[in-house]
Parts: sequence; C-alpha cells; structure tokens
Amino acid sequence: MPWRVPSARAKSRAMDEFSLIGALVAAMGDATQGEFVILGPGDDGSITSIPAATELVTTVDCLVEGIHFPIDAPADLVGRRALGVSVSDLAAMGATPTHAVISVTMPTTHEQWLIDFSRGIASAARTMKIAIVGGNLARGPLNISVSAMGYVPAGLALLRSGARAGDGIYVSGTIGGAGLALAALRTIDLAQVDSLAMRDAEHPLVRYYMPRPRLRLGEALRGIATATIDVSDGLLSDLGHLCKASRVHGRIDLGLLPVARGAGAETAIVAGDDYELVFTMADDRFDALRARSPDVAVTRIGVVTAGEGVEVIRDGVAVHIDRSGYQHFS
Amino acid sequence: MPWRVPSARAKSRAMDEFSLIGALVAAMGDATQGEFVILGPGDDGSITSIPAATELVTTVDCLVEGIHFPIDAPADLVGRRALGVSVSDLAAMGATPTHAVISVTMPTTHEQWLIDFSRGIASAARTMKIAIVGGNLARGPLNISVSAMGYVPAGLALLRSGARAGDGIYVSGTIGGAGLALAALRTIDLAQVDSLAMRDAEHPLVRYYMPRPRLRLGEALRGIATATIDVSDGLLSDLGHLCKASRVHGRIDLGLLPVARGAGAETAIVAGDDYELVFTMADDRFDALRARSPDVAVTRIGVVTAGEGVEVIRDGVAVHIDRSGYQHFS
Repeated sequence: MPWRVPSARAKSRAMDEFSLIGALVAAMGDATQGEFVILGPGDDGSITSIPAATELVTTVDCLVEGIHFPIDAPADLVGRRALGVSVSDLAAMGATPTHAVISVTMPTTHEQWLIDFSRGIASAARTMKIAIVGGNLARGPLNISVSAMGYVPAGLALLRSGARAGDGIYVSGTIGGAGLALAALRTIDLAQVDSLAMRDAEHPLVRYYMPRPRLRLGEALRGIATATIDVSDGLLSDLGHLCKASRVHGRIDLGLLPVARGAGAETAIVAGDDYELVFTMADDRFDALRARSPDVAVTRIGVVTAGEGVEVIRDGVAVHIDRSGYQHFS
Repeated sequence: MPWRVPSARAKSRAMDEFSLIGALVAAMGDATQGEFVILGPGDDGSITSIPAATELVTTVDCLVEGIHFPIDAPADLVGRRALGVSVSDLAAMGATPTHAVISVTMPTTHEQWLIDFSRGIASAARTMKIAIVGGNLARGPLNISVSAMGYVPAGLALLRSGARAGDGIYVSGTIGGAGLALAALRTIDLAQVDSLAMRDAEHPLVRYYMPRPRLRLGEALRGIATATIDVSDGLLSDLGHLCKASRVHGRIDLGLLPVARGAGAETAIVAGDDYELVFTMADDRFDALRARSPDVAVTRIGVVTAGEGVEVIRDGVAVHIDRSGYQHFS
C-alpha cells in the first residue's frame, strides 16, 4: 500500500520509516495528486478513477543499482530515470498515464537520498502528467520498482502483434544517444545534467537520465500503427520482439537509421535506453500521423515482409550486426 | 511491461531471459487470465477492464530475502506469501481483486526456483481470483515487489480515516498465529506446509506462508465499516495508524483479543503477518455484517473515543505493552 512499511518491524524502528515516509510524500508535493486521483498516498491502497469506455494498461519495470544505473548516481536522476523507463511502456501501448506506485529497497536509512529521489520522481511525474499515488519502502539492496498505469480508449491499445507484410517500419527521434552516455556515467551530478538538459536535450546524459517517453506520439498512433514497441533493449532486439509477436519478417536499412550525433549506425542499432517508439503502419497513413503528431520526427527505416526474424541491410546488401557490442557501464 | 527484460543486455544473454520468461508464464498457466484480462503477459503492458461505476484501488508491497522471508525458504511458498501480502491491502480497502504485476530481481539464473515461485504465485492467484498479467525480471539481490489492483463500487472504499467516537473496534479471525512461525521458519518445505494446510489451516507456518486476505469480509464491510486496516505490522501498530488517520483514540481490552492457539495476548498484539482486518463500525451494524459475512469470525475488542493514540487495558486497568517483543527471525 502507498508508502506504508512492510511487516518486518525490526527495520521500521531503525529507520523511523513512518515519519520518513511523510517526508517523502511531502517532497513529492502535488505530484501525488492528479486528474484521476481520488485518494493518494497514506492508506492501504490508492484510489483512482478510469474514464468510461477505456481499458487499463499496467506495466512494471525495475532498476537495480550497479546494473540499471551506476552506483553513486545522483538520487534525483535515478528517480527521473526510474519513472521514465516505466512510463515509456505506457507510451508503447498508446496509453495516457494516470498513476504509478514505487517500491524502493535500500540498505540503510539515507533520508536525503530518498528525498532527492522523491523530488526526481516528482519532477518527471509532473512532466509526464502521472500521479505518484503510493509506494513501499523496505530495507534491502538498492532496488527500485515502478508500476505505472494508464488508459486507452477501448480496443485501441498498441500491441506488438499487428504488423502486416507491406507495412513500413518507423522509429521516432534518434537512436544510439543514450548508449553514448555509458562511458561518462560516473562523473556527473544533477546540476550538470539539468544544465545540459536546458542547452541540449539530445545530450547522451540527458537521454540516459531523463527518458522522455513518447506519450503524445503513442496517443497519435492509436488506430494508425499496426504494431508498436519502445526501444529499451536496443532497436534490433526490440524490433525482433515485435516481428516475433506479429509473425512477420522485418528488413531495416542501416543507411536510413536516424542515428544520434556521435553514434555509429552499427552500435546505435544494438544500443538501448533510448525509449523511442518503433512501430509499423501502412505507408499511406504517414500523412494522417503527421497531422496528429506534427512535432515528433518519425523516420521510415524498413519494411515488413512475410517470414520471420529481422534482417539488416546496407546499400542493398545484408549486414551482420555484432550484438555483443554492448558494453555494460560496470 | 509484462515479463519483459529490462535494458541491461549483459545479463539478458547470461540468463537467456526471454525463453525463461516464457517458461514462467507457462508455469502460471491460466493464472495469467481472468474475468478482467483483455491482454495478459507478453506485450509492453497488460490490458484489463474495470467495471463501470467503480474506482480502481492500487497497492504495492515488497519482500526482500532475509528480511521478509527466510533465506532458502521454498520458492513456491515465497510466491504464495508475496502475493497474499499485497492482496491483503486490497481486502483492507474493500476492493475486489482484478490483476497484479510482479517484479523479481535475483542474483543468478535459477530457473527451477523461478518456476516454483511462479507456481506458488499462480496457486495463490487462483485462490484469490486475481490474474497475474505481467512482470519484470532483472539481475540483483533476491527481491520481490508485487503491485495489485482491484475495484470498488464508486465511493465505497474502506479507508483508515472514518472511525468515530462511539464505534466499536473489531478484528477478524485470530491474531498472533503467524508470529509463532518465526521460530520454525528454517526447517520447512513446501510439502510439509501443504500437508499442514490441509490438516490445520491455523498452523503458524500456514498463516505465515499462505496469507489468506480477508477479501470477502472486505467486500462485506463496504458501507458498514467506518475505518479499516489489515494487520501486517501488528495489531497495536496498525490500529495506531487507523486511529491517527481518523483522529480518534482507541481503547482495546487484552482479555477480548481472539488470540491464536499457543500465543499470548501481549505478544499477539505486537505480532505481525496475520493479515486479518481490524475495523471500526457502529455496534448496531454487527447483525448486518453477520448477515453479509456469516463465515468469518469477527470479535469486538474495544471502543473508539475522542482523543488520540491507542490504549490497552486488562481487567479495566491500563497495560504497558513492550513493543520491542518482536523477534526478527534472522
């Protein structure tokens, strides 16, 4: 239930969690409220409304220190990244966010870390218009799990499974940017990333720490895209999931990839963490999409055919991609 | 997103998680489906429906190995306990369960553990009529976070905040039983607990590992209880939260406590993990409640008055309770 302490009381005395949780909720301020919130943090569960004639989308993602973010990463940025990663899945479903709950375990009480983390969550929540209605705090290795909920008009969710032979394959924005951040991850602080974000929203550190889920694009794709997924594991891998779910073959052209400044196409295609959307649609829907979503760059990178698997070509010739190119920051 | 792998691909190759996740979903069988499920595991998010004129209740709880369950506890039992703990919060809100998502981190691939865990989750899910629609698997210290969702008719959720002076204080079932399990926790296996469950549903190990959220009672309490909470941290502590939220004083009589066989009232009142419901209502609603919920024992243990805090009496005299009596099993 929202920001209540679980049942092992040994730790709750050590951490004085009940007052700590009050401080966390206070740090989030109005980010605990929103259009759909009837009851926010503080009871056994939150209460939200869901608009009539809609369906509920639910997703969960988990970030572990040293694996999904660097040890000693600024807490505020960890919060922004944690929320963005989960909300991106809502975008990939075409959902409009309503609310999220956050489960945090940490080894010892570190009140300032938790408050900074909460502020980061709240900052991202305001941007994404999602309310943080509850959470859970327990002792354990640093570990953050975010469940995010949203709604779609009934029957209009974007699945992975609807791609058809003949559809074009499209991707939003640029890819490979967040992957470039991995080399620099140990040397940053919040002020630096905030400052970068104002000057250069495409900077790798901004892409990595402040994922911007493509929520408006996801909404615009309702009724237009035949299949959609977000780029979290890497374009090649994620497109592979889409093709597998749709039982089709995808062929993409390296020369068409909208690659982030400083990245190469061969590495960008296997880099993750960009949280762009990859989708398929009939090419004649392009103008309809642009009319609905004029501000988001969308690039056609390939075509769906009958068959299975994903093929990468350059200059008309099949290219072998070394998927082991990924370098983990740790 | 449901049972998809997060963005650090280094581990995903090591674990071959995509096929592992397929095995986990298979192990859960029909527990991934249900009345409200439109799309279960396998996409970026699940899709569920919520009945008209209802509100959505969301809750999250987290279990960490060595804190919320013993190291080397049987995976199947860990799964049952993990789901029960979260669903109990739905009961405490008067909600009818719809769906849940599970986030698991574990240090290394242990496919059999995960399959047993999934079977335990599925077993509990069938009992509680909640669908497991998705999850997330990542490398990290063993840590399980369960977000559970359910619905209540609009306006009828059971909050902590409605108790009024003059209400009676009630508790379901017996308390203190699960606390007795702590001494025996290292010596059990699934078959033993399953066998115990058939012979003696009140056995401490059964109470601890197979929490039975009071879902039907929670539903029956809609429109009758003025405030409700579940006993997770301990009756005294949880009633304290209820009184604080309601801005009232609670006085309970040790002699009236429905104490589990083998437990003493002084320890039962601070023992947790029972997942009974503590609630307040006007005493003249007792017959109405009994008519709606004839099968669940409910005991009046005290009275709400003006003021704050919780007072414990025995034979009309105030008793000091040693809250440090709790012994953590580790």
